[in-house]
Amino acid sequence: MRMVDLIAKKRDGEALTKEEIDFMIEGYTKDEIPDYQMSAMAMALYFQDMTTDERVNLTMAMVNSGDTVDLSGIEGIKVDKHSTGGVGDTTTLILAPLVACVGVPVAKMSGRGLGHTGGTIDKLESIKGFQVELDGQTFNDLVNKNKVAVVGQSGNLTPADKKLYALRDVTATVNSIPLIASSIMSKKIASGADAIVLDVKTGSGAFMENLDDARALAKAMVGIGNGAGRQTIGVISDMNQPLGFAVGNALEVKEAIDTLNGHGPEDLTELCLTLGSHMVHLANKADSIDEARAMLVEAIESGRALDTFKVFVEGQGGDASVIDHPDLLPQAKMTKEITAKTSGYVQEIIADEVGIAAGMLGAGRMTKESEIDLAVGLVLHKKVGDYVEKGDVLVTLHTNKEETQEVEDKVRNAYRMHADKPEARVLIYDVITE
Amino acid sequence: MRMVDLIAKKRDGEALTKEEIDFMIEGYTKDEIPDYQMSAMAMALYFQDMTTDERVNLTMAMVNSGDTVDLSGIEGIKVDKHSTGGVGDTTTLILAPLVACVGVPVAKMSGRGLGHTGGTIDKLESIKGFQVELDGQTFNDLVNKNKVAVVGQSGNLTPADKKLYALRDVTATVNSIPLIASSIMSKKIASGADAIVLDVKTGSGAFMENLDDARALAKAMVGIGNGAGRQTIGVISDMNQPLGFAVGNALEVKEAIDTLNGHGPEDLTELCLTLGSHMVHLANKADSIDEARAMLVEAIESGRALDTFKVFVEGQGGDASVIDHPDLLPQAKMTKEITAKTSGYVQEIIADEVGIAAGMLGAGRMTKESEIDLAVGLVLHKKVGDYVEKGDVLVTLHTNKEETQEVEDKVRNAYRMHADKPEARVLIYDVITE
Repeated sequence: MRMVDLIAKKRDGEALTKEEIDFMIEGYTKDEIPDYQMSAMAMALYFQDMTTDERVNLTMAMVNSGDTVDLSGIEGIKVDKHSTGGVGDTTTLILAPLVACVGVPVAKMSGRGLGHTGGTIDKLESIKGFQVELDGQTFNDLVNKNKVAVVGQSGNLTPADKKLYALRDVTATVNSIPLIASSIMSKKIASGADAIVLDVKTGSGAFMENLDDARALAKAMVGIGNGAGRQTIGVISDMNQPLGFAVGNALEVKEAIDTLNGHGPEDLTELCLTLGSHMVHLANKADSIDEARAMLVEAIESGRALDTFKVFVEGQGGDASVIDHPDLLPQAKMTKEITAKTSGYVQEIIADEVGIAAGMLGAGRMTKESEIDLAVGLVLHKKVGDYVEKGDVLVTLHTNKEETQEVEDKVRNAYRMHADKPEARVLIYDVITE
Repeated sequence: MRMVDLIAKKRDGEALTKEEIDFMIEGYTKDEIPDYQMSAMAMALYFQDMTTDERVNLTMAMVNSGDTVDLSGIEGIKVDKHSTGGVGDTTTLILAPLVACVGVPVAKMSGRGLGHTGGTIDKLESIKGFQVELDGQTFNDLVNKNKVAVVGQSGNLTPADKKLYALRDVTATVNSIPLIASSIMSKKIASGADAIVLDVKTGSGAFMENLDDARALAKAMVGIGNGAGRQTIGVISDMNQPLGFAVGNALEVKEAIDTLNGHGPEDLTELCLTLGSHMVHLANKADSIDEARAMLVEAIESGRALDTFKVFVEGQGGDASVIDHPDLLPQAKMTKEITAKTSGYVQEIIADEVGIAAGMLGAGRMTKESEIDLAVGLVLHKKVGDYVEKGDVLVTLHTNKEETQEVEDKVRNAYRMHADKPEARVLIYDVITE
């Protein structure tokens, strides 16, 4: 078998067999197939796409390129959740204890990642004492005992994907549905998930700016998951404004506590209930989505969800007193209020720009080596559809830097105002099941 | 400027500017742009093509990547000829003296190349004493004196093209019209041509098997040539059977002599007159193609064409007595006749297969290091449209090898026979001028 022939085959729109895909991914992982052939293949894939069978085979070849996490020692159906990424997305912090408290085992491996704000692991580290590095046995025992644990990524998972992703990044082949979908799904499957709920964002703050692209990606991932024997659901949700109010690490932990307490932002709460219902249903803990949702609402109202968060934090050595006293979380030295310069309705809040502003304050990491300032970020006071009077506070910055003019300008520019009230925003566009 | 952005731009179907193309080709030549980005670009080009302006800019960037030949010391308009390659193509050996003898300066740089038979340089070396390595001054002086000289390639011409071609070969991006066309045209322009006549072959023995592809390639090359200020004409000719009768180095030299003598195969003679007429016309030695053709016919009939061949051979130290005594050319130890096993009309002679057969006898070079046997090859006795009786001789092999069963089978299989007489073959399909 020769890689050049496989490239020609894909270039001509033919489907690759499992053997061919295995040859390609094994060879690439072992450096036997050079980058210059793989990048030509990636570009051919950009134009010629893959069938569902090919996507499943590519995903499993990437899973098999490295270590896989064995969660078989954990009782029950392990349902993982993945978000394609947005701004102010605190859902994992909320969902983990929320579904755990109705019996769904949450054995989550999470990353630090690069971006405007930190990853779930960074956010949890804003709780004093919280340990994200656990050995496999401790992790399994914690999940069996508390139903929930979150651990930082370790092991050599999907090295083929890591290598391919780095190549795609410099060869303009990131935006290929089969490559994006197999990259995400290979990581979820290698992490040991039995079933997967995907939160596919769409809008100005999302990777997939338009709904059609988001739907295509969701369908691709659901097809791969189901084809690989992992029941998978894709929820398409709005990212035309930041989710919730808080953007920043400790600020989002506080918002997660508020939400588990029943006082969270409406959109964040609704998205968590939607995603959580599917997780509970996939874990066979409810007969229907509606029943699952009722269980989660009850868990919040009864206080059990917040209790589970406490157990989760304590289980990993964290200071659970922050849950009742969020002011114990890292606090920025100062706050600054950004006020509206005109009156009108908020039409849109360019989520990306808000994210960049938070990053400028130090909430994110631009390179792997950057240090995150866990305390800083911003809190929105006005969201899409709200009426704003000139002089009203739009956003509060939490900052350790005196000089924030550039950040303020960016935030103010992210708010698009109009004299007319906009139509109500859709939060959940679609749920993809096949 | 970043290569990844240029790849994305081309991937999205946009045209690259001259500055962008220069950046890309300069960077690639200097190893500043890695192979893995260039191969992704090549695949994007395969799908998205290039405008004529882009093709011209790419070609000139490749010309400027290395040395160029200065023919300004040679009087007159230097018209080069290029064939996209076929089997039994002896046209250069014939055209060089033929057009020279009517006043067109022929300063040809030619390659050895890889393939079923040798290149023009190899063929000329079957004439005892013929020198193909000449310094620039000697070369220019010879052309000024005799109007014709042929020299082996030297200098570092179009290194960007060499590097890119090697990459395309292993990344399934050879078959891209803008890349093929710019590769050929950059070499012609770097070799110092003022005007160019292209012989674009189509048919089973050609790179472009179908007429539409051949026409697209011809148009692309003519567009580049004219866009780069080198008047260019593309003749699309048939390669659904070998050209002429002879396939092999010394055998083709003999056939060239026969043709210059007025006794050549009909198709080879006709193609040479067609290509030659355009060369003479582009060189401003005739006011019309018809007038040019008449000049060439007269040159053959008067014997002046053959005389010029003698002068050409002597000028480069070759033994011109072979022209009157072709049996002085290298001779194979034995000949073998391949006879027809059935009666019928010859419908097609798969040129590629005949070429491979000649290569198996040793007429060509499979790697750069292979030694060519200049004496061997084969001579066709029947061509498309001829009626063959069972037992008639189809082909004579000239071989230094006893065991030729496999070659005989290949040659016999290359002949496609049918009971009905086929329609007359077209030799010249089209002439592309813009």
